[in-house]
Amino acid sequence: MTSPLPGEDTLIALLAASLPPARHTRLTIGDDAAAIALPDGSLLLATTDLLMEDVHFRLRWGDLPALGWKALAQNLSDIAAMGGTPTHALIALALPAHWSPDDAMAVYRGLGELAAHAAVDIVGGDTIRSAGPLTISLTVLGRVLEHEMLTRRGAHPGDGLYVTGTLGRAATGLRLLETGEPVPASLAPAVRAQLRPQPRLAAARALAVSGCVTAMMDLSDGVATDLHRLCLASGVGAVVEPAQVPIDPVVEAGCRWLAAHQQSCDPLSLALQGGEDFELLFTAPFDATDTLQSRLAPLPVTRIGRITQTPEVLLQGNDTVPLPWGFTHF
Amino acid sequence: MTSPLPGEDTLIALLAASLPPARHTRLTIGDDAAAIALPDGSLLLATTDLLMEDVHFRLRWGDLPALGWKALAQNLSDIAAMGGTPTHALIALALPAHWSPDDAMAVYRGLGELAAHAAVDIVGGDTIRSAGPLTISLTVLGRVLEHEMLTRRGAHPGDGLYVTGTLGRAATGLRLLETGEPVPASLAPAVRAQLRPQPRLAAARALAVSGCVTAMMDLSDGVATDLHRLCLASGVGAVVEPAQVPIDPVVEAGCRWLAAHQQSCDPLSLALQGGEDFELLFTAPFDATDTLQSRLAPLPVTRIGRITQTPEVLLQGNDTVPLPWGFTHF
Repeated sequence: MTSPLPGEDTLIALLAASLPPARHTRLTIGDDAAAIALPDGSLLLATTDLLMEDVHFRLRWGDLPALGWKALAQNLSDIAAMGGTPTHALIALALPAHWSPDDAMAVYRGLGELAAHAAVDIVGGDTIRSAGPLTISLTVLGRVLEHEMLTRRGAHPGDGLYVTGTLGRAATGLRLLETGEPVPASLAPAVRAQLRPQPRLAAARALAVSGCVTAMMDLSDGVATDLHRLCLASGVGAVVEPAQVPIDPVVEAGCRWLAAHQQSCDPLSLALQGGEDFELLFTAPFDATDTLQSRLAPLPVTRIGRITQTPEVLLQGNDTVPLPWGFTHF
Repeated sequence: MTSPLPGEDTLIALLAASLPPARHTRLTIGDDAAAIALPDGSLLLATTDLLMEDVHFRLRWGDLPALGWKALAQNLSDIAAMGGTPTHALIALALPAHWSPDDAMAVYRGLGELAAHAAVDIVGGDTIRSAGPLTISLTVLGRVLEHEMLTRRGAHPGDGLYVTGTLGRAATGLRLLETGEPVPASLAPAVRAQLRPQPRLAAARALAVSGCVTAMMDLSDGVATDLHRLCLASGVGAVVEPAQVPIDPVVEAGCRWLAAHQQSCDPLSLALQGGEDFELLFTAPFDATDTLQSRLAPLPVTRIGRITQTPEVLLQGNDTVPLPWGFTHF
């Protein structure tokens, strides 16, 4: 690779290598979720995530239910990225000393809303007083048939590189929220994308049963970072065509608003480097756009590039340049 | 009950009640683990716990591998308490800003040691930089046959109340560690019990297949607290006989050492109020001691009281008095 591994990925690889080998697991650390064989031959999927105040969100944004929603959403998205259906969730919550039961209930309200929407049972939890920031840990379990499971590993040179939906909304929402200023209603979809992301559960299942997807993951850290991970896992490279990246219209509008407030903003950077859109990044035959679109409609699907043999991630242009790893929370 | 519910239990009940009803779960929030039906009729068990620096441990104790060990141990103990066998674990780690990869590896080393010992696969994880204290979230999955699962709910008036092993070691270890002074080698078992507890996996399975246990849980918060929970879940009361409580010899020795260092210490309080022994608290027929002992040997099993119809938890003595809820971390 032309770019060094960022700290988070290096550390996770080190930590995973330090563990005793897994003895009864189909797929362990290194994908969106782990997979465990069940007695009927199907697979149990499991994933966990930690969200912490001032790392992943700020309490001054004022939307406590959104914290519960988002913690669940990003784990649901991990199950979806494997082609699976989420079924159960466990939550562990560390509450700051000054929090009231009502504050905790508000977090649970958002969690419950999305759980009901996704038909996921919240089956367990732990609640402690935090010695520091609000911390939410979610674990989500799901199911997938073995032959429908999608991982990061199957991309082949010559495959097309695709994304669902549009990109950059959540990162734009983050930029807007960080200004601390009230934003016009026209930009609310960006803020909503940041606070209450919608995991692509139905689209992921449609792709899993399509039979033509070779590798898949969800966009939690942005194309720039996640594409590196997919390419590393598959032992391939990729070339991204900037002109094909489906930048959400609210990203352009948000950038204009930010510029009017003396803040620099580049739509393509937000779309490629910005995380938390929770769209699906996947590979399939190069000419599959129409087939894929007919399966996912009305959700747009876009081919943004192609998979190559050389293990480099490049951005095509007059000068084709390496696409560096993006920002991660680590 | 004669004592009010402490904050943690009240809040968990409130939060659980606020969630949408579980639709495809055999047993949800309110026991040591949740239970989910699998295709072959067995049950998947799932439990999660959050450990936070300066709430559950102090870094100045200087044993990083112990943090990984203990985080896993307390979740393994929850699976054991249901009569199950733990199989898989997921870890999420929030690392303080100044931590090196070696520090994180040290936590994983302890985790891996116990995982190997318990034949549990570590299958997933999340690693973030903490905006505050070191935080470890563990989720453990396990399996149990439906007819062997033990919950907190089956205790009947007239049952005997039993514990495995001896009590008070971990709480004594905590008191010793908190002095910050070097302790004599004779007290090392107490410190070890606090830092590297041994979940009762084999004993729990032996009790699950014995067919005579009516209710079971693990002692994570101490008899005083956990017995209240068991009685509430079963709709019964209990009378504890202080003279029967199996106080570990190291508790008496620790109390003498603490007294010599001008600290008050009551062995019975440490045994009843002190948490984290991770012994099993269970109910079975009143005359089952010999049967139970033959199944658990060489691990001691002791009948410490009996289950009553009146929903009160009492400590028998010249004056029989209510046993108040003990300390919890909340």
